[in-house]
Amino acid sequence: MNERSRSRPASGGAQLRERVTDAITAAVRDELAESGYLGMSMEAVARRAGVGKAALYRRWASKQEMVEHIVADLAGHAVPIPDTGSLRGDVSDYVAHATAFRQDMRTTRIIADLGAEAVRNPRLAHSFYAALREPRRAAGAAMLHKAVERGELPVDVDVDLALDCLVGLAYARPQTLTAAGEPVDPYPEPRLVDVVLTALAACHR
Amino acid sequence: MNERSRSRPASGGAQLRERVTDAITAAVRDELAESGYLGMSMEAVARRAGVGKAALYRRWASKQEMVEHIVADLAGHAVPIPDTGSLRGDVSDYVAHATAFRQDMRTTRIIADLGAEAVRNPRLAHSFYAALREPRRAAGAAMLHKAVERGELPVDVDVDLALDCLVGLAYARPQTLTAAGEPVDPYPEPRLVDVVLTALAACHR
Repeated sequence: MNERSRSRPASGGAQLRERVTDAITAAVRDELAESGYLGMSMEAVARRAGVGKAALYRRWASKQEMVEHIVADLAGHAVPIPDTGSLRGDVSDYVAHATAFRQDMRTTRIIADLGAEAVRNPRLAHSFYAALREPRRAAGAAMLHKAVERGELPVDVDVDLALDCLVGLAYARPQTLTAAGEPVDPYPEPRLVDVVLTALAACHR
Repeated sequence: MNERSRSRPASGGAQLRERVTDAITAAVRDELAESGYLGMSMEAVARRAGVGKAALYRRWASKQEMVEHIVADLAGHAVPIPDTGSLRGDVSDYVAHATAFRQDMRTTRIIADLGAEAVRNPRLAHSFYAALREPRRAAGAAMLHKAVERGELPVDVDVDLALDCLVGLAYARPQTLTAAGEPVDPYPEPRLVDVVLTALAACHR
């Protein structure tokens, strides 16, 4: 199937284009989980999505750009940076999403594979840094600044340290246990959230 | 070189055996860093160490057993579970060692590769769990129990949660930054140590 070979009215074309993008996105995730970044080819993604390779290259210039875009999108949707109106609400949301994200073995597999690949491949590491880490750090910093404005964090909070603590604590448990192949058993609420809030309040500059 | 083909007195033989073990250990680390677990063969390790394959199989029954043993040894020496006599001293030591451990790009490469491999290979994951994680968790729990006895932690401390917090916080920064290919810039002492101590004290059952 090639979305340009069919003749449809403009709006149907846009819908079709979106459906094709969704099919490609799903195919990239499946291929990443099964074959890993190194083993994955544009051919295999196209075949799995039922499109021609041209449909891929119309959207992204390279495998790296495609994976970077789709993984940033995946992470952004799965673990959004919350804005609930309170720091407790935000931390609670973030921890819940991070736990669910890492309980999914397919996602864990993709993250572990890309992590290993990024260490071998500095260009990939830098592109992930720019596409994924920088925008998320900026959104996380905005979340903490709002908490400072609401008087929930000290004015001298070390934002970098606090974000590292939030991420480190939210992922510490799922990371260790899924790597062991065991099912993740999250801490009873609100145990971990309380610890994160205490740690954040201790992050002074 | 084959340590059994030389005839030496017993003590010289023991010394030689130890030197060969050291050469094999170094070769395994180099091969793991360069080729990864999947790409690494017993042949390549033997060649690099300058020994016959039989020297490897006299020590370990399989590649998995060899890697498991050497990585557990590596981690145990690089990031020992401290016993300094105070919780602050222990946490400070642990954080310093963890930071240095992950600043070494070769180690980071090995850890990332084995992490990805463990997610693909549940048998490897379970064997690492038994060889590496369980003894370290037990030693970490003993460290925290001593702190409770000294009155440095509440008697109702949640040891599992506290260990996850210690590990998550100690590795949060180096992990993120070395994955981005950037040099790690540790937090100025004792900023992170203070946060860890505050978080541990908040880990109630």
